[in-house]
Amino acid sequence: MAEWREITGGITAPRGYRAAGITAGLKPSGMPDLALILSDVEAIAAGVFTTSQVRAACVDYCRQRLQAKPSARAILCNAGQANAATGSQGWLDALECAMLLGQALSFPAESVLLASTGVIGQRIRMEAMRNGIPQLIAAASETGSDAAAQAIITTDLVTKSIALETTIGDRPVRMGGIAKGSGMIHPNMATMLAFVTCDAAVSPSLWQQMLSRAADRSFNQITVDGDTSTNDSLIALANGQSRTPAITEMGAEAETLEEMLTAVCQYLAKAIARDGEGATCLIEVQVSGATDEKAARAIAKTIAGSSLVKSAIFGRDPNWGRIAAAAGRAGVPFEQESLRIQLGDFLMMENGQPLPFDRVAASTYLKQKADRKPVQPGGELVSIQQSNDLLVVQDGETSAFERSSVNSGYLKDDTVLISVSIGNGHGSGNAWGCDLSYDYVKINADYTT
Amino acid sequence: MAEWREITGGITAPRGYRAAGITAGLKPSGMPDLALILSDVEAIAAGVFTTSQVRAACVDYCRQRLQAKPSARAILCNAGQANAATGSQGWLDALECAMLLGQALSFPAESVLLASTGVIGQRIRMEAMRNGIPQLIAAASETGSDAAAQAIITTDLVTKSIALETTIGDRPVRMGGIAKGSGMIHPNMATMLAFVTCDAAVSPSLWQQMLSRAADRSFNQITVDGDTSTNDSLIALANGQSRTPAITEMGAEAETLEEMLTAVCQYLAKAIARDGEGATCLIEVQVSGATDEKAARAIAKTIAGSSLVKSAIFGRDPNWGRIAAAAGRAGVPFEQESLRIQLGDFLMMENGQPLPFDRVAASTYLKQKADRKPVQPGGELVSIQQSNDLLVVQDGETSAFERSSVNSGYLKDDTVLISVSIGNGHGSGNAWGCDLSYDYVKINADYTT
Repeated sequence: MAEWREITGGITAPRGYRAAGITAGLKPSGMPDLALILSDVEAIAAGVFTTSQVRAACVDYCRQRLQAKPSARAILCNAGQANAATGSQGWLDALECAMLLGQALSFPAESVLLASTGVIGQRIRMEAMRNGIPQLIAAASETGSDAAAQAIITTDLVTKSIALETTIGDRPVRMGGIAKGSGMIHPNMATMLAFVTCDAAVSPSLWQQMLSRAADRSFNQITVDGDTSTNDSLIALANGQSRTPAITEMGAEAETLEEMLTAVCQYLAKAIARDGEGATCLIEVQVSGATDEKAARAIAKTIAGSSLVKSAIFGRDPNWGRIAAAAGRAGVPFEQESLRIQLGDFLMMENGQPLPFDRVAASTYLKQKADRKPVQPGGELVSIQQSNDLLVVQDGETSAFERSSVNSGYLKDDTVLISVSIGNGHGSGNAWGCDLSYDYVKINADYTT
Repeated sequence: MAEWREITGGITAPRGYRAAGITAGLKPSGMPDLALILSDVEAIAAGVFTTSQVRAACVDYCRQRLQAKPSARAILCNAGQANAATGSQGWLDALECAMLLGQALSFPAESVLLASTGVIGQRIRMEAMRNGIPQLIAAASETGSDAAAQAIITTDLVTKSIALETTIGDRPVRMGGIAKGSGMIHPNMATMLAFVTCDAAVSPSLWQQMLSRAADRSFNQITVDGDTSTNDSLIALANGQSRTPAITEMGAEAETLEEMLTAVCQYLAKAIARDGEGATCLIEVQVSGATDEKAARAIAKTIAGSSLVKSAIFGRDPNWGRIAAAAGRAGVPFEQESLRIQLGDFLMMENGQPLPFDRVAASTYLKQKADRKPVQPGGELVSIQQSNDLLVVQDGETSAFERSSVNSGYLKDDTVLISVSIGNGHGSGNAWGCDLSYDYVKINADYTT
């Protein structure tokens, strides 16, 4: 097991990165809407993108770029317009964005990666983009991570940011990440974006493999409502500025790097899940005893995504039957006589048979998880090693929510833990989701009319 | 295209069937809870059952019975206890139910099929069952369909029943069906049951093939919340009492029979979808232009099951972007430039590009669909040929709902139509769902505590 520690600085914690976030006038709300991540040198780049047949121009653009050349100097991300379902003009707009940034920074457009989030069917406001890019570049700094994290969100209640450090050889290697979730108050907006920076030196193919595996264990295992966006993108850069030896094959150092990458992705993924619309808690489903990890993950994700399970948890109802039913329909064969279900510390089913348990106490367990503790500005930070994630609430777009003020947040042990075992196999896997509340429906129903 | 007409009588409309529904004391509420469908002669029997790994005893029992002998005299259905996750004792209880009914009717236990719905983890109240069976048999009559339809429901707001008649050769062939949906107010209760009776003569293998295909085009294409139950069962009997020639291979007569079977299943499936918890309308998704029917059905079901689409429709928001996004993530390859989306008469996207449309008028279209017209007792019946399904509201179990009185109901044109084309292929397919309302969450959250 690799060791690492949490550090501050987000995506600018690793050496050789600058970041910025500005208000360029892309969002009608006047909130920050243009972000830049910049590496001092060409960085190895890997990406994982939406599998949807309906894709934004930036997704097709990044796929083509990374196929031609797995490296980049910059990621340019706009919020406000998704540039999806915008046809050939949308494609030309994407090319122009890359060209403008490359020209202004004196490197080829081919070294620019793109991401967009916002309203489907709307082109990027190119005039605002053209005016914004010089200002964005001027704002880029080694302390710009929070500004970038702020500029990529749309209807998220909180920004999502993390940085970790480990030691490879005798030298520190750092990794940072920011993300936005699928706060879908605004119509047609359901994008998940995540950007990871790292100062390790690693071969392109290995970096891509690591990122794909990390995505399978994090972002691909979260579910807010089962909907996948046209713009989902995860991009990771590794620029070698840690001056550590290049990692070119699997081994102890590669494993350390991959575990840290997985931890960053899982932190961000969980932050997205717990910030799901209307959510009052995070649901973590741990499945073990499967023949392999993939089977375990499939069951975990089916449970985490079950509307019946999600609404039972919102209702603080320790309803093991719904967990059993969801496990059974995941498409993974198992003997029902082997099924074991635990909610928190409450064992509810063993050998496929229901067990007596203290229903009131189990409900109280669920109630406690909804009791997210607000923290005043400057409140204590809690590291992820303690399994207590902190979400810093920052002022976001105008929305149906009453928002907390900048830099306040809420401390929480808000994780409802569902543990399921289906047999004696060695495969295990996790998934994360959130409860289904009245507010989810309210947020997603009360729009135009 | 086969022709048929709607008739009255439900599952006892075909010749040679009797049915009954009684209060045997299985449900704590004292509502009807035991149903019987009886054929005068051994009938060809086919079944389609839940694919869940966690199954009720009755499901395993029916599978084994039908594999050994594809015929039956009776279907015995209890409501109140699911007899799932009840282990070997649950299995013995199922065997005893079959034996008791067979003994009382002087035919082998092997000729009895079983279905259960109710609370997972609870055994059938066998004492009530033992006392109820003689009473149930005594109540069986050629007008017993409504009583049976009433006794199989749990938290459904309305009973679901249909009968059709066609002509094969010179003689009438009749088919009836009843169903219960997934009204999941009560915990751990999410079962879909449907029973079809027919007086045609048909070979067992052909009948099973027809039923499997009909299920794929009906029950397998509805989604209330994506959850599949431990007890889902569809059983169809064909007893030959129409005295028409035996249908043993595909041909004009077989096609007529299969189309009628599909119509019965689709009617019942739609009745289940529109009675989904908290639903205010039925959503019908028609997909065309796919390479094959399976691909079209996959896209249709993904759209009908999208929480974002469902909550947009509840909010009367003509949100084509969510429809496009759901189509894109169904796992079916298509060119996004070929995507066409229509909501009612409003064309919203063509060639993958959004079109201008009257947003207020489109929202009004959606609003009208929620305006289900109540009908006084004895109100006009509307046949399904007019695409206006009638749901007769009958007094059900105590629930969170305010229920209408017996035999009242509501007339409606409550179908929101979403039409999607993805190309020039000849594959088309439909799916049905309902909107996602506050009440869905309320019903499924507000239980124990």
